[in-house]
Amino acid sequence: MDELREKSPTPGTQAPPDAAERVSLAISAAFDHRTRAAEAYHPVFAQLWKICGERVAGGKRIRPRLMLDMLAALSDDAVPDSAIEIAAAIELLHASFLLHDDVFDGDLTRRGSLNLVGLLAHDEQTDAAPTPERLHWARSCGILMGDLLLAEVHQIFARVDAAPDLRTRLLDLLAHAITESVVGEQLDIGLEDGAVVADTATVLEMCRLKTATYTFELPLRAAAILAGAASPAAESALATAGAHLGLAFQLQDDLLSTFGDPAAHGKDAFSDLREGKETAVISAARMTSAWPEIEPAFGTGSLTSTEGERMRGLLRDCGAEAFVHGLIDDQMRALHETLADPASGLPDAARDTLVALADRLDGRRS
Amino acid sequence: MDELREKSPTPGTQAPPDAAERVSLAISAAFDHRTRAAEAYHPVFAQLWKICGERVAGGKRIRPRLMLDMLAALSDDAVPDSAIEIAAAIELLHASFLLHDDVFDGDLTRRGSLNLVGLLAHDEQTDAAPTPERLHWARSCGILMGDLLLAEVHQIFARVDAAPDLRTRLLDLLAHAITESVVGEQLDIGLEDGAVVADTATVLEMCRLKTATYTFELPLRAAAILAGAASPAAESALATAGAHLGLAFQLQDDLLSTFGDPAAHGKDAFSDLREGKETAVISAARMTSAWPEIEPAFGTGSLTSTEGERMRGLLRDCGAEAFVHGLIDDQMRALHETLADPASGLPDAARDTLVALADRLDGRRS
Repeated sequence: MDELREKSPTPGTQAPPDAAERVSLAISAAFDHRTRAAEAYHPVFAQLWKICGERVAGGKRIRPRLMLDMLAALSDDAVPDSAIEIAAAIELLHASFLLHDDVFDGDLTRRGSLNLVGLLAHDEQTDAAPTPERLHWARSCGILMGDLLLAEVHQIFARVDAAPDLRTRLLDLLAHAITESVVGEQLDIGLEDGAVVADTATVLEMCRLKTATYTFELPLRAAAILAGAASPAAESALATAGAHLGLAFQLQDDLLSTFGDPAAHGKDAFSDLREGKETAVISAARMTSAWPEIEPAFGTGSLTSTEGERMRGLLRDCGAEAFVHGLIDDQMRALHETLADPASGLPDAARDTLVALADRLDGRRS
Repeated sequence: MDELREKSPTPGTQAPPDAAERVSLAISAAFDHRTRAAEAYHPVFAQLWKICGERVAGGKRIRPRLMLDMLAALSDDAVPDSAIEIAAAIELLHASFLLHDDVFDGDLTRRGSLNLVGLLAHDEQTDAAPTPERLHWARSCGILMGDLLLAEVHQIFARVDAAPDLRTRLLDLLAHAITESVVGEQLDIGLEDGAVVADTATVLEMCRLKTATYTFELPLRAAAILAGAASPAAESALATAGAHLGLAFQLQDDLLSTFGDPAAHGKDAFSDLREGKETAVISAARMTSAWPEIEPAFGTGSLTSTEGERMRGLLRDCGAEAFVHGLIDDQMRALHETLADPASGLPDAARDTLVALADRLDGRRS
């Protein structure tokens, strides 16, 4: 997703460079503070905060940057501390979701490196596969650390130095984002475990809920609230734009992890197919006559590269790839319609920022 | 723990009966509201809120009652809505912790009934043992529901209708209670998984952190803050008293689940021994010459009743039971010393309430 920040013919408004730096400092200060406080309890608790802080420090800060760029588009004022705090909290919310997501997925790595669970499960001395006890310990720690970050996010929102009505709107927005993200996660798990019926509408709704709301709608609307001047119509337009951008992004992610270059996106080439992940690509393929040929190998942990390549070919030939490209085009069209609506009252700078973001989103490779 | 509310020669101050009713109404209203809002998303999400609401409705409300009793001891005013909300939030925090605790422990029941995970894992049609997919689904839902409740608790604290400085003190107290509960849970898991060394000091600290802080210190201090008039010294005395009461309670719980009457406490007679739970009783036995005889059967899932009875006898004869009784006496003595200190500035009614609570705690059977 780095390309979202790369040069573009229509760069849109970008936040002052020091704002991103201030967010990073706020995050590392929070972890340093918590790690020191944790030392008063027990070394394993301090270690948990320390490892988590190191993992979060390596993040790309997509969501804080999106919030700060939109804030710069909506307001000429210097970036207030309250915005830095909320941007940092949004990054911590992302980290909290990732921790629980890795537990749900049973993942020990993320983007090629050991994640927090993997680090805690790993025995440096023997380098052997973790015992069930060690894995239970590591996963439990992942859940607890996710809880701690979720609590921290709320503490930041609850104490933000803003007028009471703005703070209430931010708290409402946070509740909305958490609810939708949890429903999305629940649907994702239910689709994989067979507790939820897999049809394209449900898969698309799952994508929007699980990723689009907190990754796009939350930062964009938080910027509108913090800018103070944005009208309810403008905030609503940003919410709609965020949903379209987020869904397009997630669909592109599904395409890339199925058909893209693993060297560029950093994931195992066939991991989604091996795990039996109910992506939009798969739900499209389910509707075609090719599905009986795809189904037996789908969700097979031992899928070889040759079988994976063959499945890719089937998914392409049956039209599933093209179908998802069409869905992305739909989202982009709906985005531009939202932006073109004069009733939204969106300032030109905000439109430009969203158009630039959509342009950078289109054609990304990782 | 019902006996904590039973008649006693020194009843202490008790909250007006309608206050407990208002807390129950606040809790059920919150679940009804959330369940209806969840229906807009997906039936599995609405089902999650509904089942959780039913489980929480059956709770005994120990923590809200403790808060309201202490509030009545500290203030003659009518119980304000803010106190009802905080009392409800404390019950939701307890529910959130239980949900994650059941996942850590792999439990499908609590006090003889299916818990939320057990209900979701259970297949009514076949009544067969749950498949791994079904268990994964149910446990993931338990984690997500715990997250939702944790978020809800913070939303209630963040919006409570109180002066800003009181709200900040309540938020500080919530952060403190969550931190200590998480450390306690992490130590409990680490002791069981062998990631934390089991000595009596660590086991006692684990008990205090995991249970005493949020069950006793949190409600008592929340009452002091909400009463407004309590001095910092009084709040600090309540914190100390809560720690002693909570640790005594947890130690009694360990004694009861090892030596008590299963018909009264509702747990499997030997479940702690079968699970290899690092209780104070076990950590005391570890220090004795009887340990080599106890160790081989400890943590044996297939422990028979005969072997269980034999272990009980060994744990009694080696002095572990008496040792833990001594630890409870220490806590009760320390509690009375705290209450007797005139510098605490605790009103007589508050002292009486705590003494009555300690009396009811002593000699409970479930």
